[in-house]
Amino acid sequence: MQSFSYWIGMAGITAFAVTAVLVLAPKGIDLFSATVLGIITAVGGGTIRDLILNVPVFWSLDLNYLWVAIGASLVTFFAESLFTRREIFRLMLYVDGFGAALFAIQTVDKSWAMDFGRPLAPVILGIVTAIGGGLLRDVLSGRQTLLMTRELYATPVLIGCTLYVALLAWIPDYRSAAALCCVGIIFALRAAAIRWDLTVPHWLMTKVKEPG
Amino acid sequence: MQSFSYWIGMAGITAFAVTAVLVLAPKGIDLFSATVLGIITAVGGGTIRDLILNVPVFWSLDLNYLWVAIGASLVTFFAESLFTRREIFRLMLYVDGFGAALFAIQTVDKSWAMDFGRPLAPVILGIVTAIGGGLLRDVLSGRQTLLMTRELYATPVLIGCTLYVALLAWIPDYRSAAALCCVGIIFALRAAAIRWDLTVPHWLMTKVKEPG
Amino acid sequence: MQSFSYWIGMAGITAFAVTAVLVLAPKGIDLFSATVLGIITAVGGGTIRDLILNVPVFWSLDLNYLWVAIGASLVTFFAESLFTRREIFRLMLYVDGFGAALFAIQTVDKSWAMDFGRPLAPVILGIVTAIGGGLLRDVLSGRQTLLMTRELYATPVLIGCTLYVALLAWIPDYRSAAALCCVGIIFALRAAAIRWDLTVPHWLMTKVKEPG
Repeated sequence: MQSFSYWIGMAGITAFAVTAVLVLAPKGIDLFSATVLGIITAVGGGTIRDLILNVPVFWSLDLNYLWVAIGASLVTFFAESLFTRREIFRLMLYVDGFGAALFAIQTVDKSWAMDFGRPLAPVILGIVTAIGGGLLRDVLSGRQTLLMTRELYATPVLIGCTLYVALLAWIPDYRSAAALCCVGIIFALRAAAIRWDLTVPHWLMTKVKEPG
Repeated sequence: MQSFSYWIGMAGITAFAVTAVLVLAPKGIDLFSATVLGIITAVGGGTIRDLILNVPVFWSLDLNYLWVAIGASLVTFFAESLFTRREIFRLMLYVDGFGAALFAIQTVDKSWAMDFGRPLAPVILGIVTAIGGGLLRDVLSGRQTLLMTRELYATPVLIGCTLYVALLAWIPDYRSAAALCCVGIIFALRAAAIRWDLTVPHWLMTKVKEPG
Repeated sequence: MQSFSYWIGMAGITAFAVTAVLVLAPKGIDLFSATVLGIITAVGGGTIRDLILNVPVFWSLDLNYLWVAIGASLVTFFAESLFTRREIFRLMLYVDGFGAALFAIQTVDKSWAMDFGRPLAPVILGIVTAIGGGLLRDVLSGRQTLLMTRELYATPVLIGCTLYVALLAWIPDYRSAAALCCVGIIFALRAAAIRWDLTVPHWLMTKVKEPG
């Protein structure tokens, strides 16, 4: 299980870096910026989490996270035409969603185990970990952030993390099963949003935005 | 006094979250983003401060800060038409100014007591705490930040924090009275700026900006 | 040597603050914002580094960094017409490049000595230290960041830091000479970029941008 989630994590890091380079490529970026923004997107959320938890940043303990982010960014930069083929880009969106789900639940688990501001703070950190890297990428590249779009990205994370905290409180003996279940729920919701282009419904918006 | 400043602090957190949702509502944001940005605005400055001071982030020790920020964001989201009534919005601006004054002086007090980079660093941290959350909100939502407008927000904080440091150095026995006095001064200056729409005078600008 | 690099460091802080105020002046900023952005630009990168290394932020241990940044910002604000004289602005760009080179190599040295994620993490932190302050400045002031331009700023830092890590691994006995050499290489590359307006070549871009 440990080893399995490790490899899933690396796949998530890869997807974060790949999607970062792909969304930025049309703006015209150079090899170095692509790599820097790929790294920041991949490890940014977890870095903010570790700073707030006051633990060593995860990539300083296992450089593979950085190497994988660098490798994925470089490959994407040079093979951009491959990755933008619609099917592969969509595949990456799914892997990205799975990575976000996994990192969020890992974060809730880690901060719950540290007794960090239970029960609310672990949920907040789960969301920070899942969306922090993407927010940094968008801010540094001048894109509109996730928070200002109708994309359904963070809401599934909120639902899954909240459920996981409830399960940790109520049935702590089934922690692994609960974690798997919540990763699955986040991913299922995110996958549905990707598959059917679901967005936040109008009645949950302060103002209806025109599509596009 | 402790308990009183605690409740004032909660009122400040409320005002930070409420004003955040109100200024972002016209851009069209969803319920989730409104809450996330409300939380970030309310606790962002204090979080940066705690990271720099290398102490546990304040909201992990007392979740009420988060609950209040979440509650205020949700209420504002659903009762937006109420809050944008001009008088209530202005009231919120005053409470926001009071919260900023209080948090800034609390921060100077805390970092002075920790002997953190006296005498200059406490002033810097006071300003960071007062404006950090608003800067994060503006950067994440694509608004022009406070630093690029002529609004008189941070200057009163600078004046009050500097005065408080001077008083701490010269008359340390009158710490509580000095704190109250400096909170009052910051608030009075900020309230005057809100009341009479005061802005930074032209001769303190590198270039005169057209109003609006 | 220690003392020499200290003074060079102060010159670098000065140049960071001066160039920050100069690039922001045409947008119309007030005295206070100029100073805040000058400070953030000057010490921002090193602050992020220290947070990640989990060591006390450097400016809390030696307030001279802050005083110098404040002084340089104020002087630049009031003497703007002097500094924008083309020769002096270019001189500042060179000093800025030298400061970035010095801070990057100091950071690699410090994090290598702490055994922080060798060999890759020190290089990452070197880059963060060199460009972090400028990124914060640009994000807070609504400018396009360095990462989205073709400017040759970070690439020399990457080359120098990577070389220094290699030298630390292979010939640890010649640490001081290696450091001097790598600072020199970064500065030489950056100076060449300033002198001949070198930019990232087209084949290293995802899309060719029009000049300007």
